[in-house]
Amino acid sequence: MYLSIVIIGDEILLGRVQDTNSGLIARKFSEYGREVKCVRSVGDKAVDIRAAIEAAMTESDLVICTGGLGPTRDDITKPLLADIFGGEMIEHEPTTANIKRIFAERRLQMNELTARQALVPSSCKVIVNRYGTAPVMWFEKNGKVLVAMPGVPFETRGMLPEVMDCVKEHFGNGELIRHREFTVTGISESALAERLAPYEDSLPQGYKLAYLPVAGAITMRLDGKPGADEAEFESFASRLCDCLGDNCAGTGVKSPAELLLHALRRKKYTLACAESCTGGNISHLVTEIAGCSDVFLGSVTSYANEVKMNVLGVNGEDINRDGAVSESVVRQMAEGVARITGADCSVATSGIAGPGGAVEDKPVGTVWIAVHVPGRTVAKVHHFTGDRAAVIERASAQAINMLRLELVELG
Amino acid sequence: MYLSIVIIGDEILLGRVQDTNSGLIARKFSEYGREVKCVRSVGDKAVDIRAAIEAAMTESDLVICTGGLGPTRDDITKPLLADIFGGEMIEHEPTTANIKRIFAERRLQMNELTARQALVPSSCKVIVNRYGTAPVMWFEKNGKVLVAMPGVPFETRGMLPEVMDCVKEHFGNGELIRHREFTVTGISESALAERLAPYEDSLPQGYKLAYLPVAGAITMRLDGKPGADEAEFESFASRLCDCLGDNCAGTGVKSPAELLLHALRRKKYTLACAESCTGGNISHLVTEIAGCSDVFLGSVTSYANEVKMNVLGVNGEDINRDGAVSESVVRQMAEGVARITGADCSVATSGIAGPGGAVEDKPVGTVWIAVHVPGRTVAKVHHFTGDRAAVIERASAQAINMLRLELVELG
Repeated sequence: MYLSIVIIGDEILLGRVQDTNSGLIARKFSEYGREVKCVRSVGDKAVDIRAAIEAAMTESDLVICTGGLGPTRDDITKPLLADIFGGEMIEHEPTTANIKRIFAERRLQMNELTARQALVPSSCKVIVNRYGTAPVMWFEKNGKVLVAMPGVPFETRGMLPEVMDCVKEHFGNGELIRHREFTVTGISESALAERLAPYEDSLPQGYKLAYLPVAGAITMRLDGKPGADEAEFESFASRLCDCLGDNCAGTGVKSPAELLLHALRRKKYTLACAESCTGGNISHLVTEIAGCSDVFLGSVTSYANEVKMNVLGVNGEDINRDGAVSESVVRQMAEGVARITGADCSVATSGIAGPGGAVEDKPVGTVWIAVHVPGRTVAKVHHFTGDRAAVIERASAQAINMLRLELVELG
Repeated sequence: MYLSIVIIGDEILLGRVQDTNSGLIARKFSEYGREVKCVRSVGDKAVDIRAAIEAAMTESDLVICTGGLGPTRDDITKPLLADIFGGEMIEHEPTTANIKRIFAERRLQMNELTARQALVPSSCKVIVNRYGTAPVMWFEKNGKVLVAMPGVPFETRGMLPEVMDCVKEHFGNGELIRHREFTVTGISESALAERLAPYEDSLPQGYKLAYLPVAGAITMRLDGKPGADEAEFESFASRLCDCLGDNCAGTGVKSPAELLLHALRRKKYTLACAESCTGGNISHLVTEIAGCSDVFLGSVTSYANEVKMNVLGVNGEDINRDGAVSESVVRQMAEGVARITGADCSVATSGIAGPGGAVEDKPVGTVWIAVHVPGRTVAKVHHFTGDRAAVIERASAQAINMLRLELVELG
């Protein structure tokens, strides 16, 4: 069973809003063992939406659309769906009740545009949206299914499990693809490809090995051929694991921050951060993860030198002599934040994210990183390529990874 | 002239990596006045890449592909491009020199897979990639253009200006679409649509008004009809501006953090943050912006109560009596971080991002926000819907907006 995804919305096509729905849907379905054929993004134009839906329904058995619903766009997408799948626009009463409930909770006035959100083509089955006003609509035609979901990301995230349950019930569990993913660190993609070439050549027809570069790591994904025998698949997965050796940081896909929290928890250590050039991003990456509060105590973004001195206790003479981007300062930042928060471990960053701020011997991309564990502090300078966002992202991933590897070394 | 975008890569289609290239390319071309017809994402499979490219070249004059290049995938995409556009694989010597330079700089060993990156179809014109090893390739066929770019986001960001220069030279400036964007805050999409209905009805055929919901604001975009007269377009743009009234936070698209920095700079005020549930995200949103260091001094993420007390000076008795998610605590956080950093203004957040942590009278999504400006501190409780990521995102946008509005009130 193939899946295609259609993302509707001018804001996506104008590059004003980053589409995250297609990635979420793709990830959940690939974890379940269903392959995504194509993701299409189109604007709020009936002719383009129709072309995308028709192409998707030709190539796939299941099509999930998000967006194109809501008070200012209902008049484009819904009549189009009624035209494709038949039926006329009717009011769905549980959705009207849902809209009234939501507006009452938010103490907002309903207007006519909002009330129209409860109109749906009579050809669809409605799943009431518990997270917002736009209904989820399930259409069937010639054995194929299209599900239209609202585009607001947290409504999509919230309603997706229910939609997946309906999909599983409708399509059954036949032909799921066996797969396993490994998080690989500390090796370049080309060196890894060279090492894995003999293994890759040994895989039977229908097996597939994918290199998925993610921030600070590579995810290796092995897909079995559809209907592959379990024992056979497991033997190829375990051979892959052997080939990866020490570079394998675990099965499944874990972010560098998840791997770090796991390593800290094992040793019952707590964590704090002191960030200059990464500007709070490390703290954000850690606190995105639910349940981090047993390990993470807090963080200081010390952008100004006065904050480095007055909050973290960095010696002002060292800043004057060596500059803020230096080994002496980043070490004192790491030790300072551990001291004031009482954390066992810490990471600190001080660097030049750019585009401004470069000095003669310190070009944009120069970042000092220090990690502190009980009994020792280690510091290293890095030179990251890329623009401001890339330097922030890479320095954050590197700092998190560096502390994790230091913990591994502690045993 | 239409543009279509093709994003190639299993990591995108498996939902492991968020595609940001399509949004960037779409934004840059829409700013320039060119419309994007469709974005397609496909995996590293020749048959799917071919179908996406052929559909894109049918509907658009310009196709930009990213991804599908690199040491482990060159053998799929490049021979396919040679097959579509003709020619045989030849070595591009400036690219070989570029690869050697990059590997020498990074002190890495080149292997055979890397050297193969310099092979390109003889039918293309090469633009040497100054940010990485994979070349940018420009193909022409039947008056249409396809540009294949590497998928690494900072390489795409780095090379895009050069690619756009070539596009402008090739296609000329004819038929650019006049457009204007306004950032709108403090009004719901449905209330705004009701207010703008008469204006929208008055627009001539070919004009288009789009509602683009972005974090914490709505962007309104007015597109003139292709070839619209400048004076006519300006009169409709200024009438839109009048209709938006006080809800218009400026022309162009600005993030809430950019608007805040602008408001602070006008008054020569400095900024600090104290974050609990937003976990460093506000600090990250501010420091993403190049040049923020004249305004932003620093931030404390006080996840643990001990950090609230020992670093920010929050009274422990207040935490025990009112809980950490309370007006008394969030006010002390805002005032505390202003005191220890010496900032004129500050924002503070304390709330329950979920999924755990709810207590009887404080459900998940409850967030206290305080903003401090010289002479006063204001606090307010908010109830955000959505999951952990949505609560963090919304609370961050709301906190940033609340401080900006407080500054507006100061005059």
